[in-house]
Amino acid sequence: MFDPAQLSALAAVLRSGSFERAAQMLHVTQSAISQRVRQLEEQVGTPLIIRSQPCRATEAGERLFRHAEELQLLEQGVRRDLGLAGQSENETQTWPTLRLAVNADSLATWFVPAMAAVEGVLFDLVIDDQDHSAEWLQRGEVRAAISGSPRAVQGCDCRPLGALRYLATASPAYIERWFGDGKVAPAEVRVAPVITFNAKDRLQTRWAEMALGTTVTGPSHWLPSSHAFVDAAIAGLGWGMNPEPLVSHALADGRLCELVPGQPLDVPLYWHVSRSISAALKPLTASVIRAASAVLRPIG
Amino acid sequence: MFDPAQLSALAAVLRSGSFERAAQMLHVTQSAISQRVRQLEEQVGTPLIIRSQPCRATEAGERLFRHAEELQLLEQGVRRDLGLAGQSENETQTWPTLRLAVNADSLATWFVPAMAAVEGVLFDLVIDDQDHSAEWLQRGEVRAAISGSPRAVQGCDCRPLGALRYLATASPAYIERWFGDGKVAPAEVRVAPVITFNAKDRLQTRWAEMALGTTVTGPSHWLPSSHAFVDAAIAGLGWGMNPEPLVSHALADGRLCELVPGQPLDVPLYWHVSRSISAALKPLTASVIRAASAVLRPIG
Repeated sequence: MFDPAQLSALAAVLRSGSFERAAQMLHVTQSAISQRVRQLEEQVGTPLIIRSQPCRATEAGERLFRHAEELQLLEQGVRRDLGLAGQSENETQTWPTLRLAVNADSLATWFVPAMAAVEGVLFDLVIDDQDHSAEWLQRGEVRAAISGSPRAVQGCDCRPLGALRYLATASPAYIERWFGDGKVAPAEVRVAPVITFNAKDRLQTRWAEMALGTTVTGPSHWLPSSHAFVDAAIAGLGWGMNPEPLVSHALADGRLCELVPGQPLDVPLYWHVSRSISAALKPLTASVIRAASAVLRPIG
Repeated sequence: MFDPAQLSALAAVLRSGSFERAAQMLHVTQSAISQRVRQLEEQVGTPLIIRSQPCRATEAGERLFRHAEELQLLEQGVRRDLGLAGQSENETQTWPTLRLAVNADSLATWFVPAMAAVEGVLFDLVIDDQDHSAEWLQRGEVRAAISGSPRAVQGCDCRPLGALRYLATASPAYIERWFGDGKVAPAEVRVAPVITFNAKDRLQTRWAEMALGTTVTGPSHWLPSSHAFVDAAIAGLGWGMNPEPLVSHALADGRLCELVPGQPLDVPLYWHVSRSISAALKPLTASVIRAASAVLRPIG
């Protein structure tokens, strides 16, 4: 079996990006970290870490990193079952870290309470588009994911969470300028500036297709932040698909309007968990389902 | 000279990540996009795009992408000087796109008004840590950056913007649990969960060093989102360095407290602009300075 201290050293270097910070994280010297990683590399017979700034994992390193996380999670399950949890002064040192992929809008609207309701887990979040977050799980780089895909990844369980409602929104001044007559016509949409999260974000074109019968949108700002996306719409930079929970206040007080009222786009979301640790993650899964149901809508 | 339509096609593919979306963006067929990119590749004699999902630039492609952006910006300056701006129905088609690197906390606190005050520019934002955003400029991948570094990048101008104030904050329940006696001792900080933005984020250790005389912090959550960072602190997941403008409400109404009152950490920020387009970006530079001064503090 692999030495747990060596696995922890590897995980700390990959998470913090440097041997120096890993040493701080684990409260040991930097040379202790170097030695443990080197021993692990000798045992495996291949480099595990690319010594860049920040340090990155080789393929073998990534696999052992995953193993380190799984071990921690399984061990916590044992501690819980044997009534050993929460007894030590330094109990946080035994808390497992869980790397998971979340879409930015879930994190901005309902996911934080789901994390907060679970005791004894450290979260290491990767943020990606809901259409791409499951790929992180497929590549083995995360242990769980919130994704728009209902198809279970191999070796993983998948459960529906509900749908996040998006509204095509812009400021009244923007609508006045670009859609002067109050009716949003496809020809105007081709010219009016739009806001896109990043190259993976298809929501604006999906909505335009559904509501206006055109996949075409105007020239785009690229703004990879959920809150900045809302702020930019309020400031009049463009129109964009915003999650309803993030814009309900601005819609109520008139800072934002819907481009076409009564034309929401509901995006179903699913919880994917690696089966090897799904038992250990039961409390988190329950918490995720609870927090999601408080904000998301039933999948139609 | 390079053909502008070919350069636009290249830029659209790299920005949107696919030939299909680039065609939608420029309102031409996908085969027109392919042809233009191929012609440009033939002229340069080397591949410009790596046909992956999403498409990425080769080194030569990156250089031409930058050139395309610079050309657009310079041409807009000419239009402005000749009084030709804003005359056409489809004027947004001539708006230049400006790729720039911004730290997440600037985007969350003061940068959106700076963008909104400038007419006729599309923004393509890259979000990175203030200690690393200038590297994007150095590599030529962006045309401007907001950075914590006061050193001008070669070929770029650099101006001070002011300092963003950070406060070490946590929820009252968290402080009660982990620092029961109300005094935050280094030994407790080693055990209490902390929140870190990502591997590049040194603010928590910098503050601990300054306020408590220890670089060591406890086990960490990793949460790469400014607003989720605040939400997680309010929910009691850990303590973390939050920008004062993002937490003033939560501090006032008691959802957050300072770990050690009266121990802020001020992070100076600087505006870096590529000199080749600094004249064209004068209106933006003025707007950035104005918006920054409304929120940032004088650099001490």
